[in-house]
Amino acid sequence: MKIKYDLLDTCGRARLGKLHTNYGSYDTPMFMPVGTQATVKTLSPEELKECNSGVILSNTYHLWLRPGEDIVDKAGGLHKFMNYDGPILTDSGGFQVFSLAHNKKKDIVEEGVHFKSHLDGRKLFLTPELSIQIQNKLDSDIAMSFDECIPFPVDYEYAKASTERTLRWAKRGKAVHSNPNQSLFGIVQGSSYADLREYSAKETVKMDFDGYSIGGTSVGEDKETMYKMVDDAIKFLPEDKPRYLMGVGDPIDIIEGVIRGVDMFDCVLPTRLARHGNAFTRNGKINIKNLKFKEDFTPIEDGCDCYACKHYTKAYIRHLITADETFGARLLSIHNIRFLIRLVEELRVAIKDKTLLEYREEFLKNYLGDKYESNK
Amino acid sequence: MKIKYDLLDTCGRARLGKLHTNYGSYDTPMFMPVGTQATVKTLSPEELKECNSGVILSNTYHLWLRPGEDIVDKAGGLHKFMNYDGPILTDSGGFQVFSLAHNKKKDIVEEGVHFKSHLDGRKLFLTPELSIQIQNKLDSDIAMSFDECIPFPVDYEYAKASTERTLRWAKRGKAVHSNPNQSLFGIVQGSSYADLREYSAKETVKMDFDGYSIGGTSVGEDKETMYKMVDDAIKFLPEDKPRYLMGVGDPIDIIEGVIRGVDMFDCVLPTRLARHGNAFTRNGKINIKNLKFKEDFTPIEDGCDCYACKHYTKAYIRHLITADETFGARLLSIHNIRFLIRLVEELRVAIKDKTLLEYREEFLKNYLGDKYESNK
Repeated sequence: MKIKYDLLDTCGRARLGKLHTNYGSYDTPMFMPVGTQATVKTLSPEELKECNSGVILSNTYHLWLRPGEDIVDKAGGLHKFMNYDGPILTDSGGFQVFSLAHNKKKDIVEEGVHFKSHLDGRKLFLTPELSIQIQNKLDSDIAMSFDECIPFPVDYEYAKASTERTLRWAKRGKAVHSNPNQSLFGIVQGSSYADLREYSAKETVKMDFDGYSIGGTSVGEDKETMYKMVDDAIKFLPEDKPRYLMGVGDPIDIIEGVIRGVDMFDCVLPTRLARHGNAFTRNGKINIKNLKFKEDFTPIEDGCDCYACKHYTKAYIRHLITADETFGARLLSIHNIRFLIRLVEELRVAIKDKTLLEYREEFLKNYLGDKYESNK
Repeated sequence: MKIKYDLLDTCGRARLGKLHTNYGSYDTPMFMPVGTQATVKTLSPEELKECNSGVILSNTYHLWLRPGEDIVDKAGGLHKFMNYDGPILTDSGGFQVFSLAHNKKKDIVEEGVHFKSHLDGRKLFLTPELSIQIQNKLDSDIAMSFDECIPFPVDYEYAKASTERTLRWAKRGKAVHSNPNQSLFGIVQGSSYADLREYSAKETVKMDFDGYSIGGTSVGEDKETMYKMVDDAIKFLPEDKPRYLMGVGDPIDIIEGVIRGVDMFDCVLPTRLARHGNAFTRNGKINIKNLKFKEDFTPIEDGCDCYACKHYTKAYIRHLITADETFGARLLSIHNIRFLIRLVEELRVAIKDKTLLEYREEFLKNYLGDKYESNK
C-alpha cells in the first residue's frame, strides 16, 4: 500500500502525526537512521528496533553500484535482503552523484547526469527514470524523485534553471514509477531564493506526490539560511502529506525543523560521529577519547535508556575506541541514534503539551552551555 | 571460589566433564572465544551467550598495555568492565611477548623478559610475578602461569633449559598469587621432546595447580608433531583437573585434542577468519567473497542455528564484506564461534554415546571432501 499520514495535533506550525506504512504505523516527527549500503553501520536490525527506530534510509546510488538492484530484487527486496521488517526509504541517488562522483566531476544534461563511479572511476549515467526503476526494484516503502542538489551559494539564474529541470525530472520519474507498494516523494529545490522555493513547492505539489521533501539544505549554507529555506518551502506544502527535511541530524536543526513543521529527518551524523569517538549528550557533544574519561566509570549520559548506557562505562568505551575495536563504534552508534530518537520522542510530547518553545530553550541551555544565548 | 572439575564420562581417553566456576557450571570439552582487548572482536556479550559460550579468554599483555590493569581493577574487575557475566580466563602474556614484541626482539633472563611494546616501542619488562599480579587485578576466574613459549624447531639443550626455567617461573608466580576467587593453571612445555614433556608435566603437577595447560603448540610444527606433544604431556596430568590446549581452534585439531583427553580450547581463528570473509562449514571453509555466492540466497550453512544463518544469506553477507561493512564480520564471527561451540557440543554427545571415532570419520569425510583419506 501507499503510506498514509494522519495529522493528530499541532503546536504553532509543529505537527504531531502518524505515518502508516506497509510495515506498521509510526509517530512523527521521526528521526530515520541511515543504512547507506543496506546496513546501518555496525548495527543489527534488532538494535535499531531497540532504539525505537521507525523508517530507516538506504542509498540508491550505493546499492545500484553494489550489490546491484537486481540482486536485491532476487533476494526478495531490500527488507528481506537486509532483514529489516520496518519501513525503508530510499533516496534517489541525486545527492551522492553530486557529492561522491569521482573527482566531483559530473556533466548535467537534460536527460540526466554523466559521472564516474567513486569506487572504480567507471562511467555512469543516472536519469530520473533509472533512479525510479532502481528504487522500484529495491522495493523500499518510500522512493524519492531524482533531483539536482544545488550547491550553495549559487547565482539566481543557475538556481532557476536547475529548479525547473528538477521539476521536469520529477515528472519523468513519476511517469515511470510502477511499484504499487511504494510511495513516491517529490523534492522542493530553489536554493536560498524565496520565490524559487515557492515556485518549486507549488509546482511539485501540483504533481500530487505521497509526501514532500525539502532538498538542497546542509550544503554549506549557514543555519539561518537553512531555516529560511525550510520556511520558504514548507508554507506551500499540503497539511495532509508528510514533510521530510533531507540530510539533517544535528539536534538543534531537528528542533528548529520540527518547530517549522517538518515531520521526518535523516542523517549519517550519529553513526559517523560514533566512528570518530563522538557522542551526543544533553550537555553537548563529547569525544570519548578525551583523557578525562580514562577512569570515568559512569555511562555516556546519565538517564539515557540505550543499551550502551545501561551496560557500559565511558572508560570501557574509551578503551574500545582507543584500541580500534569496532564494538566501541557500535556502542556509540546505538547511543547516538537513540539520542536523536529520544529527542523526537520528547518533541512529540512537547507538541502535545504545547510546550515546544520552552523545550527548545531548555534544550539549548543544556546543550550549548556557556555558548547559550536566549533565542528570543 | 576456585574452579572445580567433575569427570562425568569417558570414551577412550576423551573426557566428558563439568567445570564449576564463579559464573556458573559449564560442560567440557569446551571452546573458548578470545576477547583479546576485553572484547571478542565485533561481538556483544549477549551474542556470545547466544552462541552458548562458557569461558571466554582475554589477554593480559594487551590489557596491561591498554587500558592498564589498574583501570580494570577500579572498574570492578574484567567482568564488570566488559559486561561479561560468564567465566573469564586470562593468559599470562607470555605468548604475546614472544609473538608480538616490537621487531620480535626480546631478551630472556632468569628474572623475566625484556622487550619492547608492539604499540609504541616503549621498553617493558615482564616477570612471572608481575604477570600474576596483573591477572590478580584483572580478577579473571582462571589465571595462567607465565611461561616461555618455545619456538619450533629448537635444539634439545635450549628446550631443556627453557623448560626448567618455565618450571621456576611457575613456582615464583604461584608464590605471589593472592586472589582467592581466581584459579591458577600450570603450563607444560618441553617442545617436541617426549622426555622433556614428561619431566615438565610431572614437575608442574607436583606444584598442585587448579588445572593444566599444554603450551608450545601451534608454533610452526606439523600436525602429527602437535598431536604427539599432546600425547606426551597429557598422560602425566591428573584425572581430576581440567586440561587446556592453548591457541588451538582448527576444527580437526579440536577433535584430535578431545580424543586425546583435552577439555578446553581457545583460538582467535573464528573471529580472524571472519574479518577476512571466511566461514567454517561442515563441508570445509568457504570464502564468502567468492563470486559464486553473489546470488546465493541460502544461509552460510544449512542447518546451522546461529543468528547469522537464521536471518541472513550468503549474498547479503558477501555484499557486506565486499563493501567493508563491519556488520559482515560480525555475522561471520557469530557463525564461526557458534560453529566451534556446536562442534564441542556434538563431541560431548559422541563421548557419551561412545561414538567419538565414528564422529571424527564422518566429520573428516565432510570437511575434507576429496582430500579425505581414512585415518585408520
